[in-house]
Amino acid sequence: MSRTQITAEPDMPLIIITREFDAPRDLVFRAYTEPELLTQWLGGCDARITIERYDVRDGGRWRYLSQDAEGRVYGFRGVFHGAPSPDAIVQTFEYEGSPGQVSLDTYTFEDLGGMTMVRSVSSFQSVENRDRIVEQSMELGVRNSARQLADVLAKLQTSAT
Amino acid sequence: MSRTQITAEPDMPLIIITREFDAPRDLVFRAYTEPELLTQWLGGCDARITIERYDVRDGGRWRYLSQDAEGRVYGFRGVFHGAPSPDAIVQTFEYEGSPGQVSLDTYTFEDLGGMTMVRSVSSFQSVENRDRIVEQSMELGVRNSARQLADVLAKLQTSAT
Repeated sequence: MSRTQITAEPDMPLIIITREFDAPRDLVFRAYTEPELLTQWLGGCDARITIERYDVRDGGRWRYLSQDAEGRVYGFRGVFHGAPSPDAIVQTFEYEGSPGQVSLDTYTFEDLGGMTMVRSVSSFQSVENRDRIVEQSMELGVRNSARQLADVLAKLQTSAT
Repeated sequence: MSRTQITAEPDMPLIIITREFDAPRDLVFRAYTEPELLTQWLGGCDARITIERYDVRDGGRWRYLSQDAEGRVYGFRGVFHGAPSPDAIVQTFEYEGSPGQVSLDTYTFEDLGGMTMVRSVSSFQSVENRDRIVEQSMELGVRNSARQLADVLAKLQTSAT
């Protein structure tokens, strides 16, 4: 059973993803902003993530490379709008293989009393750009990453006790 | 007759604006990126624009204040995604009166042989956010600003000859 909900309505340039994690809000926020934690879940189980830059502040840039099992490398980059906090992370997102196609990603972290609901809204410049991302097997990647993140959060809490 | 086309389809979180200007592409790009030119057109004819910061580079932040005829001051801010160029300016946009409601604005400048077609695409986090912007008399502001910009470009070309 997957607890990750992905909503991508037809003819609408948005992707909305929600997922609950069994971890407190501050820890989930750390997993979304600290490079040494991000590398453990961002690419799902099959990709090796190398973070080149992750400057978590207003106007800070980020860039990482994802290497798949066959050795192919994919680059991703963006900037942070406003200072990231557990209330919200607002950032741009661009896959370097499709230069100029940029989305605006907003992450919010809702405290459910020890658990956390993460909601992300990605807004695209057109429905076509959104559809292209969905076709590029976004869904599998999202579910794999969320599963990895759940594992990372579980391990962090075990080691903290 | 207005040459500014504004498209805001129902139930779609986008605003698309196109306008031709009687000026070469590089000059139009300058008018979109140089503070001393921006202040001359950005607020239309009634607002006084004060640019606090306009750091035109990848990750650079921008912020300006718009003061209306009654003295009310409105703040706007964002960051640039990628290095702005006449090919494209991609930036986030936030009205400080609605914190957390951010759009991604993409400007492209098409050379029509001495004239320039400016196209902007604003993508919002939801249809509700888009509708709110449209209701806040966005349309009048856009048309007034475009008219001011046309005047500024005409003056720049007169003074250059």
